[in-house]
Amino acid sequence: MVEVVELKEDERLDYLLAENLRIIQSPSVFAFSLDAVLLARFVYVPIQKGNLLDLCSGNGVIPLFLSARTKGNITGVEIQERLYDMAVRSIQYNGLEDRLHMVHGDLKEMPKQLGYGKYDVVTCNPPYFTTPPKSEINFNEHLAIARHEILCTLEDAIKSASDLVRQGGKVAFVHRPGRLIDIITLMRQYRLEPKRIRFVYPKAGKDANTLLIEAIKDGSPDLKIEQPLIVYNEKDEYTKEVREILYGES
Amino acid sequence: MVEVVELKEDERLDYLLAENLRIIQSPSVFAFSLDAVLLARFVYVPIQKGNLLDLCSGNGVIPLFLSARTKGNITGVEIQERLYDMAVRSIQYNGLEDRLHMVHGDLKEMPKQLGYGKYDVVTCNPPYFTTPPKSEINFNEHLAIARHEILCTLEDAIKSASDLVRQGGKVAFVHRPGRLIDIITLMRQYRLEPKRIRFVYPKAGKDANTLLIEAIKDGSPDLKIEQPLIVYNEKDEYTKEVREILYGES
Repeated sequence: MVEVVELKEDERLDYLLAENLRIIQSPSVFAFSLDAVLLARFVYVPIQKGNLLDLCSGNGVIPLFLSARTKGNITGVEIQERLYDMAVRSIQYNGLEDRLHMVHGDLKEMPKQLGYGKYDVVTCNPPYFTTPPKSEINFNEHLAIARHEILCTLEDAIKSASDLVRQGGKVAFVHRPGRLIDIITLMRQYRLEPKRIRFVYPKAGKDANTLLIEAIKDGSPDLKIEQPLIVYNEKDEYTKEVREILYGES
Repeated sequence: MVEVVELKEDERLDYLLAENLRIIQSPSVFAFSLDAVLLARFVYVPIQKGNLLDLCSGNGVIPLFLSARTKGNITGVEIQERLYDMAVRSIQYNGLEDRLHMVHGDLKEMPKQLGYGKYDVVTCNPPYFTTPPKSEINFNEHLAIARHEILCTLEDAIKSASDLVRQGGKVAFVHRPGRLIDIITLMRQYRLEPKRIRFVYPKAGKDANTLLIEAIKDGSPDLKIEQPLIVYNEKDEYTKEVREILYGES
């Protein structure tokens, strides 16, 4: 079977996983990060069916990755039309239109648009950085919106996720450890009880630079801190666990 | 130099560290845990001088351990007279009466008794467990008080620590990861800003079972998650780092 895909400007068709997925990326517009892949692997997913939602979807990396872990329906929400368009074409290229679909819009509107409490799982890899003074913002608008809290704040993302997930459903975020206290405080404020946290360390002996957190809507308090995830070994190669997540090696 | 120490009932004189400290313990009353030693090593201490305070001191393990890290003055507070008495005799045995002293009393009274904002560093290894139904409480009163929030709650300990530490001073606690959210929330409520957290894992591949956290009174938000501390290696022996902390091996 030969698939045809239209590539625009400096886009390229990258491999994603050993699952034979391909994804459209563009260095000047958006390329997915390891964090997104780690979140897609960290989050609990129902295997046979269910409704999953990914907010701040970018080029659709998390929906694509999740499609290899579940037979359920996956919706991605992306506010930037250019990235939304990349995600739509990647889904088509992989022949996943029957159970993956993208919504172009603002996550703050999604509870009204998609319905309250309709999702079993909500994931989000939000912009990490609070909005800096205008002079310091990345002058590439696509990258700036993906990285800074320009169009959505952490609170917007957590509130929307809480509105969209069903009671007992799961919400998973990836973020920086420096925001741990904000995330925990906001999640509790919006009835999301943190249940699992995993910290990601660039190397043994270094501080964590990423955190993965999963909460349950109206869950009971009982937090587990899971084993550390180390990204690079002492030779600066990906560790076995990360290779396995990225490439499906075991 | 021959030191004389009075040992009561089933007490024994255990070694503490390569620093040649000895500590009185009793299996039926109180024996220090690895957690206390990890906290005493984790916390920032001024080396040449300063006033340090340890709450819920038990048999004085943290003051004794800290005395090997600082030349400052160290005060321990313990509510159980039997444990207070063990700590006093250990301090005498080690000849440290000039800069270590114990207070027998309730930590809730200490701000009034010892003064507000007088300490550079406050440590606390509080009881870990919320008070269970009477039927489930350890019927050994000494152990029950040390383990359960019978005479002081986590909030009591954090409030007292905040009252006792000076602005810009440090407060360090050791606790269970399941209480992370409570600790962070209470610390913020009492103007202690968490700055460093280190999770302790019993073994590689396991969930964390202990957390070390240090906050600064009226500090600015900027949390670091430090490298994981693993206690046992795959042969069930202490790891190099723990041996080094416990015995001074390097």
